[in-house]
Amino acid sequence: MGSYCFGIDVGGTTVKCGLFQTDGTLVDKWEIPTRTENKGENILPDVANAINLKLEEKKIDKADVEGVGIGIPGPINSKGEAACAVNLYWGFTPVAQILHDLTGLKAKAGNDANVAALGEAWKGAAAGAQNVILVTLGTGVGGGIIIDGKIVAGAHGAGGEIGHVTVVQDEKEACNCGNKGCLEQYASATGIVRVAGRMLAASEEDSTLRGLQNITAKDVLDAFKAGDTLAGRIMECVGGLLGSAIAGFAAVVDPEAIVIGGGVSKAGQPLIDCIQKHYIRHAFPSCKETPVKLAILGNDAGIYGAAKMVL
Amino acid sequence: MGSYCFGIDVGGTTVKCGLFQTDGTLVDKWEIPTRTENKGENILPDVANAINLKLEEKKIDKADVEGVGIGIPGPINSKGEAACAVNLYWGFTPVAQILHDLTGLKAKAGNDANVAALGEAWKGAAAGAQNVILVTLGTGVGGGIIIDGKIVAGAHGAGGEIGHVTVVQDEKEACNCGNKGCLEQYASATGIVRVAGRMLAASEEDSTLRGLQNITAKDVLDAFKAGDTLAGRIMECVGGLLGSAIAGFAAVVDPEAIVIGGGVSKAGQPLIDCIQKHYIRHAFPSCKETPVKLAILGNDAGIYGAAKMVL
Repeated sequence: MGSYCFGIDVGGTTVKCGLFQTDGTLVDKWEIPTRTENKGENILPDVANAINLKLEEKKIDKADVEGVGIGIPGPINSKGEAACAVNLYWGFTPVAQILHDLTGLKAKAGNDANVAALGEAWKGAAAGAQNVILVTLGTGVGGGIIIDGKIVAGAHGAGGEIGHVTVVQDEKEACNCGNKGCLEQYASATGIVRVAGRMLAASEEDSTLRGLQNITAKDVLDAFKAGDTLAGRIMECVGGLLGSAIAGFAAVVDPEAIVIGGGVSKAGQPLIDCIQKHYIRHAFPSCKETPVKLAILGNDAGIYGAAKMVL
Repeated sequence: MGSYCFGIDVGGTTVKCGLFQTDGTLVDKWEIPTRTENKGENILPDVANAINLKLEEKKIDKADVEGVGIGIPGPINSKGEAACAVNLYWGFTPVAQILHDLTGLKAKAGNDANVAALGEAWKGAAAGAQNVILVTLGTGVGGGIIIDGKIVAGAHGAGGEIGHVTVVQDEKEACNCGNKGCLEQYASATGIVRVAGRMLAASEEDSTLRGLQNITAKDVLDAFKAGDTLAGRIMECVGGLLGSAIAGFAAVVDPEAIVIGGGVSKAGQPLIDCIQKHYIRHAFPSCKETPVKLAILGNDAGIYGAAKMVL
């Protein structure tokens, strides 16, 4: 086994790159731009080039590199193939194969949220656990399921697509996925704003949120933490749907730990407490004590998880 | 690798036993009584004795036996230990270790519903699939999750406890598990009777179910298949909750196939059609075509899955 490996996390504007020792020590991290022009044809060559340059710079022999893992924003099947990646302007792309051909290294590819889950399970909030659920609360709601220390990619690369579980049966508006009542419609940053708008309109209750123009999820979470009653009710609604949904996921795979990440999780422990209260109410009895934890690797979760894929 | 293996399925009244070739050919199957007296202390010695007698009868050398797998009605962790098994009057029991000590064979233990799922994934409705969800609709609602051809036992042996996912937020009555609004309260045999009772009481609508004393789930399913309108509405309610819940499970692990088993599944294809219609409505787009299939191994699913555990 080599002493080093690379973890790459491809986003819509930048590619995060990490050089690791195989024990998980981060040796170096840096970014390159994501060149999406010409259907994103430069993205993987740019990654391969960045790897080669780093090996030269560090005077590391390729024979001493275990491999390269890469996270992609889109569904990736267990062979490391992307059916498509809308934000990269890619159609079908055999990511792992191409990266192997370009670098000569063992290469693995995974969905970015799944890869972040593996990162948190390896060196993050759930370090050492073999079975973990990560829930990512960002612009959307994503996640990743880790079983026996490995990503559950799924038959259609849709493993961990937990933002699209139906949590409200009588929703009238459609989710981006086309269904109605998806968790993402309430628990993402945009979902929280949407719930806030509805609850502000439905009552006359005094709130520091009134008078703000273009309320953001951060406004709602700040008001919640400051003790605003209406913001408290908004987050009770959001936390109730999240806690109940997560309890359902836990009844499926019974993880050792549940990790909450993404931009919304910057609200910190008060958000975790709110989710956990509802989780405990709905969880199967033997799962009620499963810890609900804040993600700790932040934007680095992707490079850690990507590196772990090849170990 | 030996040419044979044993699959054992322990129930509350009988123990089903199977002798298999390692290619999955069932050589012989038979039953012994489950002796639950004295805290069930005879159950595993009786199983070991049954194995030894069968080997003598068939003149098979123990060296030619790959191992023995056993399904237990209760939570089993990934080490093959039961925290308890109420129907067997067991407290903590290291099932796999005891069975190994008694037989000298490699031994594995799993929860009976999880083991049945493995059976259906090996030689049943989802033969050849590596990733499968089994939903068992019986007196309760259970299930099993198979990932990479292996049972997801879970951190507390609660993997696949999908009967206890919350599907109704405002339920007043408690489930056997203590929570409220669990899938089992609507989709088990007793749940279907409960939904029927509520809907019969809530309307005056004509139905062949009226006038029956002590309505059973079979009565409801028979009336549903015969075209009774009220029974159709009952099963729309049940199928809606089931289809939505199963779509949620599929968003977590994205299986290749979903298998419906248990006594209620004897209603056959009309039940599958009813579940699938709602499944498709709620499923994440790339999972909508995932097949929903009737279990085909019936009461033998347990011995098949138990045998597969040691292969």
